Amino acid sequence: MLTLHDYWRSSAAYRVRIALNQKKLTYATVPVDLVAGAQRTAENLGVNAQGFVPTLVLEDGTALTQSLAILQWLDETYPEPRFWPVDPAARARATAMALVIVADIHPIDNLRVLKRIESQFGADADAKAEWYRHWVTEGLGALEAMAGPESRPFLGGDAPGVADICLVPQLHNARRFEVDLAPYPRLLAADAAATALPAFQAASPERARPG
Amino acid sequence: MLTLHDYWRSSAAYRVRIALNQKKLTYATVPVDLVAGAQRTAENLGVNAQGFVPTLVLEDGTALTQSLAILQWLDETYPEPRFWPVDPAARARATAMALVIVADIHPIDNLRVLKRIESQFGADADAKAEWYRHWVTEGLGALEAMAGPESRPFLGGDAPGVADICLVPQLHNARRFEVDLAPYPRLLAADAAATALPAFQAASPERARPG
Repeated sequence: MLTLHDYWRSSAAYRVRIALNQKKLTYATVPVDLVAGAQRTAENLGVNAQGFVPTLVLEDGTALTQSLAILQWLDETYPEPRFWPVDPAARARATAMALVIVADIHPIDNLRVLKRIESQFGADADAKAEWYRHWVTEGLGALEAMAGPESRPFLGGDAPGVADICLVPQLHNARRFEVDLAPYPRLLAADAAATALPAFQAASPERARPG
Repeated sequence: MLTLHDYWRSSAAYRVRIALNQKKLTYATVPVDLVAGAQRTAENLGVNAQGFVPTLVLEDGTALTQSLAILQWLDETYPEPRFWPVDPAARARATAMALVIVADIHPIDNLRVLKRIESQFGADADAKAEWYRHWVTEGLGALEAMAGPESRPFLGGDAPGVADICLVPQLHNARRFEVDLAPYPRLLAADAAATALPAFQAASPERARPG
């Protein structure tokens, strides 16, 4: 069986939970409490050299890290439903939309960076919220411009793809920081279409939270 | 012909120059001077909604953004020499190593974030250098642990792969910031093996610099 080293509130782990549900795969969970510092234990570092979640451990013990790499493995190993389209240029476009979130929003706005601006620059809660909003607004504005025609509900077109799997956790996170999402109607439409699906609902932080 | 919207000093553009050379593709260049703010012109935003480089414009006018997505398109369209291996778990591992740089080092350490810590927190040159070193050291430490056995020179094994294409520009950048790279012997070995190759040499910032 597949084993996911998971934290309920991690956006990156949330992506992988959605992906596993979309592929209708069952998996065991190892909770890693990021707030308690469990990511730096020898157990977690043994599967994830970065000390991050998620990690997906395969049946043969291979540990896959980085959510987008895990999504790639899932899509190549369990082709239906597809996360990426078939045409190479369309595939690159899907990856590019995902990377706007995976590379250019999330890593700058995640917990370790917010902690760092506090420790290095003395940022208080307001300054951290301003920092968060700055990067999420930059990225979502670009992603809104990259989204396809309104007639196709998902960023992936007629079905949710890799960009939708990254979008839903990012918007969930942005709402926690009370970011105004009204300027992004295409993204809100994709988010609404995706979160109406059982695979996305079952992966939500509220449902993944232990206890 | 392929057209690369390029900036000689951009690490992300440097990755794509290496990749194009590895595939032995000829391409035209449109220089985008990031220091002069040319990334925010209507021309650049017309091909790259994020206002970034690189953008690869295909013969049919399709504009591909995000360097890792461009590498994916190149590898799927021109299969030799391969950037990714064939086995899905090995492919995911290669992507994960690339993402340590593409998602977890470069976006936090690039020019727009260094400018932001100056404007929001008043960071001076020393504080910016400390910030830079913190994130590059975190990421390279993990990547060193993820690198394969010493008997295989490249992160990609016996030939340079996607992770090597991302590593070389990141180490070039780290040297500009005078980061001590001695703790990363495996990464230095891969960098030395890769930068000995003509495709990597021809892509260097020094060679790409206009005029």
